[in-house]
Amino acid sequence: MFMLHGRLAARPGKRDELLALLAEGEHDARMPGCRLYLVAIDETDADGVWVTEVWESEDAHRASLQLQRVRDQIARATPILDIAGFKRQQLDARAGIPN
Amino acid sequence: MFMLHGRLAARPGKRDELLALLAEGEHDARMPGCRLYLVAIDETDADGVWVTEVWESEDAHRASLQLQRVRDQIARATPILDIAGFKRQQLDARAGIPN
Repeated sequence: MFMLHGRLAARPGKRDELLALLAEGEHDARMPGCRLYLVAIDETDADGVWVTEVWESEDAHRASLQLQRVRDQIARATPILDIAGFKRQQLDARAGIPN
Repeated sequence: MFMLHGRLAARPGKRDELLALLAEGEHDARMPGCRLYLVAIDETDADGVWVTEVWESEDAHRASLQLQRVRDQIARATPILDIAGFKRQQLDARAGIPN
């Protein structure tokens, strides 16, 4: 299943704000086809917020980017992001996928 | 919450065998304190099996290594592992943690 493990880089001093923003959707209804949207920090990485996602398909992930709440979230995050610091690992989840 | 995202390296040609071994526990009862044990591959990484884990505490993770089924799994995996190729990122999961 389509999986991403990636680093969103916040501008210096903005990580916690970015973390809060990404964690907002935690209790919302799950996005269609999303099986995992895990938000984490790495104590050795002051400006990074790490997101690990599993989607039933790459298309489901791509479609989620069109959801209004995701578009709003991206718009709000953009001013505090450092695109140059992004990292992205694409994987294929094979076992242990949450229902 | 205690989280690991890491690469277990298989000896050349042994990745699928390692993947199958790590995926075996998928339908077993969850290990105490384990909230996620996700096994994946990276299409650009022929010898790696990537495991993303979330545990209710570092102690819960450490205790799991003493479980007989985990000890058996490690014993069976050891001959096909390339320890030098291991990678390990420790994180702190903050949102979107499976129940």
